[in-house]
Amino acid sequence: MYEDRIRRPALMEKLMSAEQAAKLFADGMTVGMSGFTRAGDAKALPAALVERARHEPLRLTLITGASLGNDSDGLMASAGVVARRLPFQSDAALRRKINSGEVMFIDQHLSETAEQLRSGDLAPVDVAVIEAVAITADGGIVPSMSVGNSANFVLQAKKVIVEINLAAPLALEGLHDIYLPAPRPRRGAIPLINAWQRIGTSAIQVDPARIAAIVITDSPDSPSNALPGDAETDAIAGHVIAFLEGEVKAGRMGPELLPLQAGIGTIANAVLHGLIDSPFRDMTMYSEVLQDSAIELLDSGQLAMASASSITLSAKMHQHFIDNLERYRQRIVLRPQEISNHPEVVRRLGIIALNTALEFDIYGNVNSTHVGGTHMMNGIGGSGDFARNGQLSLFVSKSVAKGGAISSVVPMASHVDHTEHDVDVLVTEWGLADLRGLAPRERAVLIIENCAHPDYRPQLRAYYEEALLGGGQTPHVLEKALSWHARYKTAGTMLQPAA
Amino acid sequence: MYEDRIRRPALMEKLMSAEQAAKLFADGMTVGMSGFTRAGDAKALPAALVERARHEPLRLTLITGASLGNDSDGLMASAGVVARRLPFQSDAALRRKINSGEVMFIDQHLSETAEQLRSGDLAPVDVAVIEAVAITADGGIVPSMSVGNSANFVLQAKKVIVEINLAAPLALEGLHDIYLPAPRPRRGAIPLINAWQRIGTSAIQVDPARIAAIVITDSPDSPSNALPGDAETDAIAGHVIAFLEGEVKAGRMGPELLPLQAGIGTIANAVLHGLIDSPFRDMTMYSEVLQDSAIELLDSGQLAMASASSITLSAKMHQHFIDNLERYRQRIVLRPQEISNHPEVVRRLGIIALNTALEFDIYGNVNSTHVGGTHMMNGIGGSGDFARNGQLSLFVSKSVAKGGAISSVVPMASHVDHTEHDVDVLVTEWGLADLRGLAPRERAVLIIENCAHPDYRPQLRAYYEEALLGGGQTPHVLEKALSWHARYKTAGTMLQPAA
Repeated sequence: MYEDRIRRPALMEKLMSAEQAAKLFADGMTVGMSGFTRAGDAKALPAALVERARHEPLRLTLITGASLGNDSDGLMASAGVVARRLPFQSDAALRRKINSGEVMFIDQHLSETAEQLRSGDLAPVDVAVIEAVAITADGGIVPSMSVGNSANFVLQAKKVIVEINLAAPLALEGLHDIYLPAPRPRRGAIPLINAWQRIGTSAIQVDPARIAAIVITDSPDSPSNALPGDAETDAIAGHVIAFLEGEVKAGRMGPELLPLQAGIGTIANAVLHGLIDSPFRDMTMYSEVLQDSAIELLDSGQLAMASASSITLSAKMHQHFIDNLERYRQRIVLRPQEISNHPEVVRRLGIIALNTALEFDIYGNVNSTHVGGTHMMNGIGGSGDFARNGQLSLFVSKSVAKGGAISSVVPMASHVDHTEHDVDVLVTEWGLADLRGLAPRERAVLIIENCAHPDYRPQLRAYYEEALLGGGQTPHVLEKALSWHARYKTAGTMLQPAA
Repeated sequence: MYEDRIRRPALMEKLMSAEQAAKLFADGMTVGMSGFTRAGDAKALPAALVERARHEPLRLTLITGASLGNDSDGLMASAGVVARRLPFQSDAALRRKINSGEVMFIDQHLSETAEQLRSGDLAPVDVAVIEAVAITADGGIVPSMSVGNSANFVLQAKKVIVEINLAAPLALEGLHDIYLPAPRPRRGAIPLINAWQRIGTSAIQVDPARIAAIVITDSPDSPSNALPGDAETDAIAGHVIAFLEGEVKAGRMGPELLPLQAGIGTIANAVLHGLIDSPFRDMTMYSEVLQDSAIELLDSGQLAMASASSITLSAKMHQHFIDNLERYRQRIVLRPQEISNHPEVVRRLGIIALNTALEFDIYGNVNSTHVGGTHMMNGIGGSGDFARNGQLSLFVSKSVAKGGAISSVVPMASHVDHTEHDVDVLVTEWGLADLRGLAPRERAVLIIENCAHPDYRPQLRAYYEEALLGGGQTPHVLEKALSWHARYKTAGTMLQPAA
């Protein structure tokens, strides 16, 4: 049994149940788990750890690629298994534990966790739990639908637990390109100079002696929870495409554009979906996650290839992807997130970065993470890796939330994840503000008039005019700068009462 | 005359006065001028432009490396010559014009201006004005005490004006290493894998036909305006050194440390000066500017070599440097600021980044630029290039300013240049907060207890405790988050009245 999945016969003796494997953990350990945007996460060990924690204390530092599927994050958090969590999550139950202060959450740039582990800035990983489609004859671990930080975890962990998922087809083998930079300061250049390139191995190399357990699973990734587009996301897509057409016309890029990155979620997915009706051809993606839209663009032929660290699809698109894997395998590369998001590579390739803002202010500072300035939503993810180092940094958002009670365009961002220095273009369904080469006072006018919801424009204009009385590079009325957020908490809306 | 300085005889005919050269400009042009932290700036053309603006409208977009010396920025701004300015400045008169809204100031990461010019995100440079020690036989421009963006300006400008400064010794030739990355997206790796390495040419290559004027000058750079250290900067230096000793002891780096970067200014200079009494040996610098302290460390032998984009010294140290140039030439490399600050190189080498904060908040967000959240001080400079991409990012500040009326540790930064994601260590004269791997709630306690001035700790604790009642990943009382800054404006102090 499983000879095609476990091709090194001596490892057969490491086959065990998840319950047995869960005994390899000890209270206080640091655990690295595969999984990135609900793709390629371990399916059995999280539940086994929850079960173990019913009987004895088991508090872990849990590091992943990004968010886990299968409610694993929430189940482990609710069981008290997760003491510390990094670098990203998107689970409602875990989010509650984070915001109540029960779980310490370290919100990191997705390219940096591996670097901090390597440098010793973070405690080393004790146990790695990696979902795989197979273990090769020489002990290589072939990942499933994401790579994330798995290679780094395997490199560092004293014990490696491999979950072989029979639901992940063997045909995924060959999709991955595993390359890790050498430790600093003696590191060479990362030899990746175009999105297509493969620079590593197709499996994660590991000394087989460190494989402490192999657990068989047979369940699919959680499907993407991106919602279908709507009139507003269509409008945002239209503004983005018109802007990019302008860039091509101005000679700043060719009709193949520059390599595209798009963040996780509904709006970015809808914008990419909108590219199907665009005039661009032979595009490439150099992103961290591929959603349904990327597959659609590969199918339409407009996207020549796509590089990422994870593939997160709807159930229907997942089946289509698996059914046509032979075809996609030549046009998709899955890399460690350290490489998909690496500043060196992102800067070199000149990425167009498209990410979602929770809110932004009239000067172009972006909040990607904190609802009301205090409560964590998901995390910054890779948005900073791409926005800082790409050639063009676009942030998109609907202009209002909660039926208009919240304006996404505010006087001052209540939390800043991306500073004015890193934001080139802001887009809502109302329009686009091209901030390149503009000073804050010039940006304010554009952002208010092009991006804000018309219901909020008068009070934004009034704020800005009052702020101008105090002068400055970035005029503000500090007493009122965060008053909109405070008003929402007390009055249920950011809208000011009519004068 | 000048045969040693102008080695291509045909160019002798381009010799002219600054007044004549000033006629090459037209109203509305974009001008790229050499100069970085008061070093290597053009000495004659700024005054000639001011003179010309007395008689006719002359409003320019002025792009430099960083700050100019000789009051040039202020004189040009006061004469109305500067309509737009980027990417950095430090002049009192220009600052007033910026904060009054008369000059549009675009505050940029110092590595990015060149990239934006190359990509066409900024309007191209019409005229470049470059201080040089010589023009070579093949038309190469040999820069003086800084490289900055000069090579990029020369590459792009239709007309190049060279100021040959006789006060800058010919012996500076050979100090520089001029390398520019290719345009994206077809760019290879930057082949620089250690701080010592030379990867380019010793002069800026230019088609001699584009050299439109050569102006002779004979005046020195403005001396550094860094103040001598004091008891507080000594204490900060002590905390930084003890921290670095801990890193060596923990095995996270060797006794040569990692390549050091230190920002411009009094505190960073004093911290580096403090390294003379440290146990570290064979250190290297990979920084953007070398101050007196770098020369002292080269003299003491602790610093093996230093790479930067500029050398800004006190008058006395400048003379010492010139007198011993043959010795230093083997141990100093001056690079374009795009390379000295390049994310690719900074990340690869694993820089220790040491930069100055104006203020920081209890969660680790840093304001480097805006006094009171609104008024520009100097600009972000290269701090973001290094803090984001280096291995360790330290920010230093005295705990209070204005005789204690302003706390540098505040509930919420009134402007954010460096987010919590990019700040590893905070230091004041009171102590050091090592934030690595910590969640915001954990950071708050450390920052308040280790870094804040004791006079402000009670009210910081009270703020944090009240904020905790509202919960969240990053607890805040939005109504009070910026109240300290507002109180300073009305009451002249951030200190709360005794209850």
